[in-house]
Amino acid sequence: MKTTSFQVKTGSKPAIVDITDRVENFVSGEGDGLVSVSLPHATAGLALMELGSGSEDDLWDRLEFMLPRDHRYRHSHGSAGHGAAHVLPAFVVPTLTLPVIGGEVSLGTWQRIAIIDPNVDNPTRDVVLAFLTSG
Amino acid sequence: MKTTSFQVKTGSKPAIVDITDRVENFVSGEGDGLVSVSLPHATAGLALMELGSGSEDDLWDRLEFMLPRDHRYRHSHGSAGHGAAHVLPAFVVPTLTLPVIGGEVSLGTWQRIAIIDPNVDNPTRDVVLAFLTSG
Amino acid sequence: MKTTSFQVKTGSKPAIVDITDRVENFVSGEGDGLVSVSLPHATAGLALMELGSGSEDDLWDRLEFMLPRDHRYRHSHGSAGHGAAHVLPAFVVPTLTLPVIGGEVSLGTWQRIAIIDPNVDNPTRDVVLAFLTSG
Repeated sequence: MKTTSFQVKTGSKPAIVDITDRVENFVSGEGDGLVSVSLPHATAGLALMELGSGSEDDLWDRLEFMLPRDHRYRHSHGSAGHGAAHVLPAFVVPTLTLPVIGGEVSLGTWQRIAIIDPNVDNPTRDVVLAFLTSG
Repeated sequence: MKTTSFQVKTGSKPAIVDITDRVENFVSGEGDGLVSVSLPHATAGLALMELGSGSEDDLWDRLEFMLPRDHRYRHSHGSAGHGAAHVLPAFVVPTLTLPVIGGEVSLGTWQRIAIIDPNVDNPTRDVVLAFLTSG
Repeated sequence: MKTTSFQVKTGSKPAIVDITDRVENFVSGEGDGLVSVSLPHATAGLALMELGSGSEDDLWDRLEFMLPRDHRYRHSHGSAGHGAAHVLPAFVVPTLTLPVIGGEVSLGTWQRIAIIDPNVDNPTRDVVLAFLTSG
């Protein structure tokens, strides 16, 4: 199994960051297998979604409805909304496993691998990649 | 790694389509490993859930509450609700990886593998299957 | 592939149960690979989240907002909220696949593997573990 990890700047505002290229480069030329993409964090998630056409703001709107970034949470420290960020991974999973066929991640035309990070207190995030081949 | 893909008719209304048999047939007799089930689409997801007892309509009701199929979305083209369909995969993931033990997908009695497709503008969907064995 | 299954008591109230130690012990000393954690049940899910700091009750609050535990559901038998429990796995997935590096599950400091079980009618739950190595 081939593994790596890297850091991504997500800044001090809620951010959606495209990491598709990093995952694609990691498995390029590596044949067939399953690639795991994981965030070792408790206040962010991953999504496979179209980026660049407005769905980012649509997602924040719906997250604000479902998980308002206010002070209602028991788990409350740091900036407003920290408690919401801790509930997010139950719905927006922090780990995805994707098929790789002939060194290419099997994604649809409009699918991108995105970090969904509502947390304004962690400006950088780690990403762990692991590629398991058929041997 | 063994791979295949096939098309499923999801029609021009929101649809939940059971693809369990297709996945089970794909790995039948193939021993132990992990099977990945993926939709290369940005407006649909997959769920492991009981089908045939009313939960399909219950899910649509709750999705209408969380992601109303109206014109509030920035990402807005095609039919009403297209923007909602683009947010759905952040919550209803379009890829699942399941254990296969002795050629059988490890599922509970009531669990079915279902395409959740709210999108009325894409009447057919592709499904990608990949089975990685222990070699 | 190495597999096992075990039972967890989730009791007759909505429960969040930490199974991280069970998964870590299962892969300890086993090298590199991907470990699948699955619930063969249609009324519970799994989450990677911080436990012990209040997020459990925060999650129940938000689930009550999204999936109220009342009698509105078509799939309705057993205790109030049974219908809600059947919708939950579409949002809180009942299967997770995680990288294992050098016999250790790749988790962040605050991430725990938790069963999210809103169902009061099933006091015990099965968990299936499968570890696929690079051979």
